[in-house]
Amino acid sequence: MPKIDIDKAPVTTASIYPEPYAAQMAGRSSRGLGQAAGLTQFGVNIVTLAPGAVASLRHWHLNEDEFAMVLTGDLILIEDQGEIPMRPGDCAAWRAGVANGHRFVNRSDAPASFLVVGSKAASETVTYADVDMILRIDGDGIEMTYHDGSDWSGPRDLAPKGDRK
Amino acid sequence: MPKIDIDKAPVTTASIYPEPYAAQMAGRSSRGLGQAAGLTQFGVNIVTLAPGAVASLRHWHLNEDEFAMVLTGDLILIEDQGEIPMRPGDCAAWRAGVANGHRFVNRSDAPASFLVVGSKAASETVTYADVDMILRIDGDGIEMTYHDGSDWSGPRDLAPKGDRK
Repeated sequence: MPKIDIDKAPVTTASIYPEPYAAQMAGRSSRGLGQAAGLTQFGVNIVTLAPGAVASLRHWHLNEDEFAMVLTGDLILIEDQGEIPMRPGDCAAWRAGVANGHRFVNRSDAPASFLVVGSKAASETVTYADVDMILRIDGDGIEMTYHDGSDWSGPRDLAPKGDRK
Repeated sequence: MPKIDIDKAPVTTASIYPEPYAAQMAGRSSRGLGQAAGLTQFGVNIVTLAPGAVASLRHWHLNEDEFAMVLTGDLILIEDQGEIPMRPGDCAAWRAGVANGHRFVNRSDAPASFLVVGSKAASETVTYADVDMILRIDGDGIEMTYHDGSDWSGPRDLAPKGDRK
């Protein structure tokens, strides 16, 4: 049946991030609607954030388009240009390859949720804007580096912008 | 800015269907959120149906995954298995290549809308379940045939199921 039984769609609270970032995702859960429906070309998830929770580190995708619509509650979208309040029905999208790190955070005292759609590329590179990390993801697994391409061996701050090439 | 100004996203009421089917889409409009945001890998539209309007002929996609979430009003999803009432927050999805013709209709006395996401394949074949028509769409245009592959030259009913190979 094409109608999705949302309550039966799989829920995950796991993060692909290494520590200490994974622990920072506490209070986030993601329900896999696309997975429940057997979609393979793009992911569709409903992400719920407890009060104070964040959806991700601030990041951008090299190969995959991304779209989000707020469903319930009040969220803040943080990106390079600053912070944008987002209410139910508000939408945002990020075209693949545009280097604008973004994330949703819930600073309200009630849960909030959003629908998020992302293409599924054969391989993906995700660059984090506030921490020195890049994840390269493909069928073989996840490779973690710093922004300069060297192996990631623990959390470190980004170099000041003037030092970056 | 990643936040989409929905009121400024382009609206279309046009249909790719030949007549008489195009005229049957009266009362439907589609707002291109993905287009407004410059997405290229999947389409994101908010489709609004006036009372009595339909979103499409009943159809299925060979190459493209499709997902929909009802946003406002009361809709009916019609597919091979019958009719399913759909309310705001209800979701449905159709995996590419699954031959289950579907469409939304608005039988209520108020407007209704849904969000729809579809992959953008380089070429697509759309098969219509209630009328004898197949559309093949690629960068060169649209080719229209009957289900038996012969050129479409005007509306005709499908042969009774027992006669189909």
